[in-house]
Amino acid sequence: MKVKITETVLRDAHQSLLATRMRTTDMLPVVDKLDEVGYFSLEMWGGATFDTCIRYLNEDPWERLRELKSRMKNTPAQMLLRGQNLVGYRHYSDDVVDKFVTKAHENGIDIFRIFDAVNDIRNMQKAIEVAKREGAHVQGTICYTISPVHTIDKYVEFAKELEQMDCDSLCIKDMAGLLSPNNARMLIEALKKETSLPVALHCHCTSGMAPMSYMAACEAGVDILDTALSPLSWGTSQPPSESTVSGLEGTPYDTGLDLKLMTEAAQYFRKLKSKYQCILDPISEQIDTNVLLYQIPGGMLSNLVSQLKEQNALDKYEDVLEEMPRVRAELGYPPLVTPTSQIVGTQAVLNVLMGERYKVIPKEVKDYVRGLYGRPPKPISEDMVARIIEDEEPITVRPADLLEPEYGKMKKEAEDLGLIKKEEDILTYILYPAIAPKFLRGEASEEALTPVKSCETQKLPQEIYS
Amino acid sequence: MKVKITETVLRDAHQSLLATRMRTTDMLPVVDKLDEVGYFSLEMWGGATFDTCIRYLNEDPWERLRELKSRMKNTPAQMLLRGQNLVGYRHYSDDVVDKFVTKAHENGIDIFRIFDAVNDIRNMQKAIEVAKREGAHVQGTICYTISPVHTIDKYVEFAKELEQMDCDSLCIKDMAGLLSPNNARMLIEALKKETSLPVALHCHCTSGMAPMSYMAACEAGVDILDTALSPLSWGTSQPPSESTVSGLEGTPYDTGLDLKLMTEAAQYFRKLKSKYQCILDPISEQIDTNVLLYQIPGGMLSNLVSQLKEQNALDKYEDVLEEMPRVRAELGYPPLVTPTSQIVGTQAVLNVLMGERYKVIPKEVKDYVRGLYGRPPKPISEDMVARIIEDEEPITVRPADLLEPEYGKMKKEAEDLGLIKKEEDILTYILYPAIAPKFLRGEASEEALTPVKSCETQKLPQEIYS
Ligand SMILES: [Co+2]
Ligand SMILES: [Co+2]
Repeated sequence: MKVKITETVLRDAHQSLLATRMRTTDMLPVVDKLDEVGYFSLEMWGGATFDTCIRYLNEDPWERLRELKSRMKNTPAQMLLRGQNLVGYRHYSDDVVDKFVTKAHENGIDIFRIFDAVNDIRNMQKAIEVAKREGAHVQGTICYTISPVHTIDKYVEFAKELEQMDCDSLCIKDMAGLLSPNNARMLIEALKKETSLPVALHCHCTSGMAPMSYMAACEAGVDILDTALSPLSWGTSQPPSESTVSGLEGTPYDTGLDLKLMTEAAQYFRKLKSKYQCILDPISEQIDTNVLLYQIPGGMLSNLVSQLKEQNALDKYEDVLEEMPRVRAELGYPPLVTPTSQIVGTQAVLNVLMGERYKVIPKEVKDYVRGLYGRPPKPISEDMVARIIEDEEPITVRPADLLEPEYGKMKKEAEDLGLIKKEEDILTYILYPAIAPKFLRGEASEEALTPVKSCETQKLPQEIYS
Repeated sequence: MKVKITETVLRDAHQSLLATRMRTTDMLPVVDKLDEVGYFSLEMWGGATFDTCIRYLNEDPWERLRELKSRMKNTPAQMLLRGQNLVGYRHYSDDVVDKFVTKAHENGIDIFRIFDAVNDIRNMQKAIEVAKREGAHVQGTICYTISPVHTIDKYVEFAKELEQMDCDSLCIKDMAGLLSPNNARMLIEALKKETSLPVALHCHCTSGMAPMSYMAACEAGVDILDTALSPLSWGTSQPPSESTVSGLEGTPYDTGLDLKLMTEAAQYFRKLKSKYQCILDPISEQIDTNVLLYQIPGGMLSNLVSQLKEQNALDKYEDVLEEMPRVRAELGYPPLVTPTSQIVGTQAVLNVLMGERYKVIPKEVKDYVRGLYGRPPKPISEDMVARIIEDEEPITVRPADLLEPEYGKMKKEAEDLGLIKKEEDILTYILYPAIAPKFLRGEASEEALTPVKSCETQKLPQEIYS
């Protein structure tokens, strides 16, 4: 069975290696070529790109979408959407989700890859419904992690829910590089057997296992692999596109892609990489064996080091490392991805530094236990709930059900501020009310191409807590 | 079936990424730890390390061997031996081969991985015989390449010859990173079926396919995989050890190695790498898609670029690129590895720059056609032979049969020069008569740790032609 390729060089690859800083002007000259390769899709929007455009690049993300899309005659345009969080860091009300997805599709997104950090389908439901209503392809996404409750059966159960919601395909999102070849094989075989949907696999090379897992995935019947052109591959990014395509040539999984065109495109990005060299953190190009040893994503550990350094408490590193899995277990084994990685990490640090566990509990941990982030993979024990939110009752409804419609109110606010030239500007304002005004007024400027602190991208999401 | 691991960090990994420059003093602090991991073997001698020790590091390679070996209580010591070329660049007489292999074993080598550039077993025979006689493990090696005559059947035939010579195991040496997962699978399955020897697989990541090929190799029944600890892995080096070990955990191929110890050792090399950072050519850490497109090893192409630049003829690049496969075919499809890569490359350049094919023919091309390098994989046509060496007859005997014993004569020469303190010094002198005297007299000095030109390591072997 022919395997298809989703090329991530215009989104996840530079988000992973270049702090999401690739400019639209650097993408446009190569899009025609990428469009001719024969990819299943080109991931080129969403994730952290929206935020970075406005915050650092003084670029209109909607404009980027239209510019890229106008050059893509053959290849579907794909985005990564954080479910009810859209491309922001909190849940938005349903009317905002509806508007955002509608506008994203209208401006060119063909495939919506939709996920939720704790795999709570209620946080994905609205976005899926709207994307389907608008006629887009929806890729229902499973965040992959390892824990006693994350069994193949559980993943299959989740996948079936996604299928019932009319998703067109499934994606296994291995954001931390935890997926071993063996587990890839078992999971994909199960998904293929128990659902009728095509399965995409999205791995990061952080632990170095991804190319092996891709090989195993092919044998297990995977339909789509995510890869990045070689100059922006490996390390915290995806496996290299050319090698994957070449490695499958002449096998039943042959992708049939044009390796010559890919090599030309790679040549373009090789040169471009040197332009962005100052941003490239060499650490992100290295294998992170901590993922293999502790199942803790690399980003969390580098964050931990900076946090402890700031507190002059680097000698507590090992203690915190041991505390993290304890906290994660007590909080019901959330996958460690934004924002749950910050929730677990911060509480673990506090537990160690305060000399008493849960003596200090940040608001976001309380909100998590309140159920405002969705259902933890494993129910949190009554003891823990009481310890963290005392007499309060966790919610049982869909978190977004508690949110009042906000589109109309925010629209008026933005209009009163004189920020709106087109409808999409309202969404930009709703997503980033703090930084959007400056940008929308044309008062922002593009940051210079200078070194970015290695933990800055990880810090971005923490804004929700401040 | 449990898969074993040969760790290359002390030899091929730094030969590939750090121009073979790692010092013995930088190896000693970590050997104890490496020795405890549980590796099948530790490759730590031979290849280009011998030459580099004397030429650049002012180090006695024999001393390195003894120092490392004295710290290896559990793990066999492995070296790479170029058959009749030993660790030099020409054929040596049988008495020298005998002495060298005997002394290498006496000083600590347990496993001899023996290869010949054109897979001519007659060039490996003497070394194999002596190593067996001395009681060492011999790994008979197949240089892997792609051509119409390099069929699975041919490789199997060669492997059977190696088995008949009492080799203890086989090695597939994929020096250029050409081996696809599919071909790895077919070749290994055939070797396992047609011989009774354990099979080792040695891949370079140059094209990025190696981790996928390793996965396929496991399924095909490979016994041993060559890997390098992650800081010195990937690119032109081997796949990362930790990722390979972790990726096979819990499968039938589980290596059973101690990942914690490996991570500690990797930490050591991560720091060491920054010491050697100035030597590290970033190009060697990148995927080389030319291997995928043209089946030409990366090193040859970078060499080609420098040669053409020197001649102010960079505009002929494409022409030479097309000429190379023609010359290679006419010369009987030799694998492109030292010294045949230089032979093919140089002739291709001359053919294009002279405006007439084979107008100028270097001595080494003539010697190759004379049969002095061994039997080409495919017999060279009579026309071509006549064109290159005119009325001369190519030899049909084993090339080394034409060599007079040279050990005694060279020994006397070295003694007369007052160079010899121990028997091994005689071998050092025989291997490198031009540079050994200065070294043996104690007049050499260690080069400073400064950037090395990217093509320098490739240039080394060309000394045989000058
Ligand atoms: Co990703
Ligand atoms: Co090698």
